[in-house]
Amino acid sequence: MSAFTPIDRYLENNRQSHLEQLFELLRIPSISADSTKKGEMEAAAQWVANRLQSAGLKTELIPGDGPALVYAETPPVPGKPVVLVYGHYDVQPADPLDLWKSPPFEPVLRDGNIVARGSTDDKGQMLTHVLSVLAWHEAGMPLPLQVKFLIEGQEEMGSEVLEAKLPEIAKKLACDVIVISDSSQYAKGQPAITYGLRGIAYFELRVHGPKADLHSGSFGGAVTNPGLALARILTDIKTPDGRIQLPGFYDSVVSLEESEREMWRSLGFSDAKFAEALGVSALTGEEGFSTLERRWARPTFDVHGLLGGYQGEGSKTVIPSWTGAKISFRLVPNQDPKTVGKQLREFIASHTPPGVRVEVIDLHGGRGVVVNPNSHFMKGAVHAVEEGFGVKPVLIREGGSIPIVAQMVDALECDVLLIGWGLDDDGAHSPNEKFCLEDFYRGIRASSRLWHHLAQ
Amino acid sequence: MSAFTPIDRYLENNRQSHLEQLFELLRIPSISADSTKKGEMEAAAQWVANRLQSAGLKTELIPGDGPALVYAETPPVPGKPVVLVYGHYDVQPADPLDLWKSPPFEPVLRDGNIVARGSTDDKGQMLTHVLSVLAWHEAGMPLPLQVKFLIEGQEEMGSEVLEAKLPEIAKKLACDVIVISDSSQYAKGQPAITYGLRGIAYFELRVHGPKADLHSGSFGGAVTNPGLALARILTDIKTPDGRIQLPGFYDSVVSLEESEREMWRSLGFSDAKFAEALGVSALTGEEGFSTLERRWARPTFDVHGLLGGYQGEGSKTVIPSWTGAKISFRLVPNQDPKTVGKQLREFIASHTPPGVRVEVIDLHGGRGVVVNPNSHFMKGAVHAVEEGFGVKPVLIREGGSIPIVAQMVDALECDVLLIGWGLDDDGAHSPNEKFCLEDFYRGIRASSRLWHHLAQ
Repeated sequence: MSAFTPIDRYLENNRQSHLEQLFELLRIPSISADSTKKGEMEAAAQWVANRLQSAGLKTELIPGDGPALVYAETPPVPGKPVVLVYGHYDVQPADPLDLWKSPPFEPVLRDGNIVARGSTDDKGQMLTHVLSVLAWHEAGMPLPLQVKFLIEGQEEMGSEVLEAKLPEIAKKLACDVIVISDSSQYAKGQPAITYGLRGIAYFELRVHGPKADLHSGSFGGAVTNPGLALARILTDIKTPDGRIQLPGFYDSVVSLEESEREMWRSLGFSDAKFAEALGVSALTGEEGFSTLERRWARPTFDVHGLLGGYQGEGSKTVIPSWTGAKISFRLVPNQDPKTVGKQLREFIASHTPPGVRVEVIDLHGGRGVVVNPNSHFMKGAVHAVEEGFGVKPVLIREGGSIPIVAQMVDALECDVLLIGWGLDDDGAHSPNEKFCLEDFYRGIRASSRLWHHLAQ
Repeated sequence: MSAFTPIDRYLENNRQSHLEQLFELLRIPSISADSTKKGEMEAAAQWVANRLQSAGLKTELIPGDGPALVYAETPPVPGKPVVLVYGHYDVQPADPLDLWKSPPFEPVLRDGNIVARGSTDDKGQMLTHVLSVLAWHEAGMPLPLQVKFLIEGQEEMGSEVLEAKLPEIAKKLACDVIVISDSSQYAKGQPAITYGLRGIAYFELRVHGPKADLHSGSFGGAVTNPGLALARILTDIKTPDGRIQLPGFYDSVVSLEESEREMWRSLGFSDAKFAEALGVSALTGEEGFSTLERRWARPTFDVHGLLGGYQGEGSKTVIPSWTGAKISFRLVPNQDPKTVGKQLREFIASHTPPGVRVEVIDLHGGRGVVVNPNSHFMKGAVHAVEEGFGVKPVLIREGGSIPIVAQMVDALECDVLLIGWGLDDDGAHSPNEKFCLEDFYRGIRASSRLWHHLAQ
C-alpha cells in the first residue's frame, strides 16, 4: 500500500460522481463571445467557485468588466513551491448547430468519449485539477504544497478581464509555476508535456466600397468590387509557398534549435495519416519545414470567416457595399502582436486597390511562450503524468495560443507547465467536441500525483 | 393640321381620364412574389385585358402554372411590319412600408410625379402603349400596322410562365420587332433608346478543405485554408487591370464600333459626378474603356456575396471546412453563358491550390442582346420619341440583363426596341417609387407616333 492508496480509493469510488459533476458544468452554455449569455456565464463561474469551496479552498469571485474570475487557494505550505492552476469556464460558440449529432450542451457518452461543447476545451481538463485537490481533501491528506486556482471566463475571446486585473492581483497569484491543462496529448496513448505555445494576432478586415449595394448589371465593371478587393488583399498577404509578406514580419522570429527538430523527427509523425485524418488530399505550408514544425514553431496566416454581400439561397445581383474577413496570424516567440498589427496596417495601406477603403479592427492578441524543457518542475511533471497514464510523456510544443499565459509568466515571473489531457481530434472548436472518458480519469490521477512531485 | 391632329386632340382631352385609369391599375397590389396576392394578380390581369378589349383588340388570358399572360392583337395589316409590345402587370413587394410617405397602393401626385408601387415599373410605362392604341381607335383611325400585346405577371420573379409557354405561343407572338418600355431615359429631359443589354452567367463557388472545421492554432500552417484558397481563385479570375482570365473568354465578344464609342463620348458623362453619387473615391475597370463602355458594353466579373467560416461577433479561431462565393460574369453579345460555365470550370481545374476541392454550382444565365442602332425600326423609334418628348433621343445600351428579352428575340427571330420613359432615380424597387406625370403623357404621345413611323 502506497501513500496514495486513500486517494486512489477515493477516485475509484467516485468515478460516476466525477462524471456527473462534469456533465453539470457542461450543461451550462457559457459562450463568452455571445453577449446574450451573461446569465449562463455567471452560472458557470458560480458552479466552479462552489466546487472549489466544497473541496475546502478559500474561494472568491473577482469581478471585472466582463465575466468574473474564479480564484481559490489551499493553505500555504512554508518552504514548498506554490502552484497556480489556470483554466477557463467559457467555451467557443457551438455553431454550426446542424452538424452536431447531439445537442452541444446536453453532454452524452459516445464511443468512450464525453461529447459536448467544452468537454475538452476546457471544462473537462480544468476539472481534473479541481477534483484531484478534492480527492486529497476527502482522503484526509494535507496537500504537500499550496495550490491556487485561477479559472477565468474569457479565454475564448482574449482574456480581457484577466489582462486588466493582472497587475492588481499579481500578488495574490504569486507562484513558482503555473499548471495548465488546456491542450492535447501527442497522440492517443502517448501523453505529452508542452513547453511552447504560439501567440496570436487576430483582426477583422472590412473593405468598404460604394455607399450602398449597387445593381451589378448597371454598375458592374465600373467600380472596384469590395469582394474582389478583399480577395486580392488576402491573397497578397501570403505567398503560395507559405511566406507572409508583411514588412518585417520574420525579423523577431526565434529560429528552431537543431535539437528540437531532432526530438520531433523522432516522434515518427506520419504526414499521410495526418492528411487522411483531416480529410485533405495534400498537406501544404511554409517551404523548408516539416508538418510538426509548421504547426508548432512557425508563424502562419489564416482566414476564419468571410463576411458580406448576399448569402441567401439562389442569386442576387448586387455589388456589396462592403465585405469582410476574420483573420489571424499565429506567432512564435518573440513576435509581438502589437507589432504585427502595425505591420498589417502598413501592408494594407500599400496594397489597397483604388476605389475602396480598408478598415482593420483589432480583435485580440497574445504573445507566444516557450520554457526550458529540462527544468526541475518539468521533471516532476514527467513523473506525475507517467504515473497517471502509465506511459512516459514526450516533450512537444503546441500551435495554439493561450495569449494570457505569456502575460502571466511575465507578470508573475514564474515557470509554466502545459499538461494537456486532450487529443488532436477532439474538435475543440468544432461540432461534436469530445473528451476521452478514460483520459478524464487518468488526468485526475496524474494531477493528484503532480502536487507530490512538484513539492519534491 | 397634321394627320395626327385627331389623336393629339383625343390625348389632350383625356389627360385626366388617362391618369385615373393608371391610378385604378396602381391601386391593385399585384405583387407576384407574395403568394397571398393571387386574387389581386388575377384582378390586375383582368383589368389590363379589359382595357385592351375596350380599345378594340382581340384579347385573351393565356393560363399557365402561375399568373396568366395577357395577350391581345389589332387586325393584321398586310405588307406592314408586326409589332409586339411586351410589359408586365406585376410589381415588386412594397416593404419596407415604413419608408413610404404615402401608402404604396394609394397613388398620389407629388412634386409632378405619380407616386405608387408600380408607377414606373412597369404599369405606368406599359400603359402608355395601351392608351396610344386606344387613342388611334377613339380617333377613328385604323392602325398602320398590326400591334400585339404580351403583358405578363412574373417579370419581377423570373418570367417562368412565359418561358415555359414560349415555344407553344411563339407562332401567336410572331413579329418583326418587340417594343418594351420598362427602363429609363438617359437623364431628366434626355430620352434614350436602348439597343443593347448585357447577359449574365451566375454561379456559386464552394471551396472544400478539411472534412470539419479545424482549430487554427493546432493546424494552422499545415493545411490549405479554404478561405485563402477561395481568395486566390477569385483574384486569379480577373487581373488588377480588369481582364478576365478564363481561357477563350473574349473569343466571341463583339467589339465596340468606333461610331458607338463616339456617340457615347458625346453624352458628356461625368466620371466625377458618378463617383460622388456612388460614394467611391475612384472609378476602376477594364483598361482602355470609358465608364459607360465598361457598364454597357464590356463583360465583367463580380462577387455578390462571401460565405463560410465564422461570421458572428468577435473572434473564432477556426480553419473553416469550406468557404464559398456568389459570383457572376456580365456578358456581351455574342457570349454564351453555357460556354462561360465551361470556361470557368476549366480555369478552376488549373487554378485550384493543392489540398482543396472546388465545386461550381450553376445558378442562372442569360444571353445579352444588341440590335443594330442604325436599323429601320430604330430610326422610326427615334422620330417617334423626338415627336413625343420634343428632344431627340440618344442611343445607349444598358448593363443589366432582362433574360426573357434575349429568349424572346431568339425564339421569335425579331428585332427589339427598349424605349424607357422612366428616370434613374425613380426607385423602381424602392419605397416611394415614382413616375414623372409629364413623361407619362409624353410617353403616350411618343407611342402614338411609333406605330406610324415603324410602318414606314
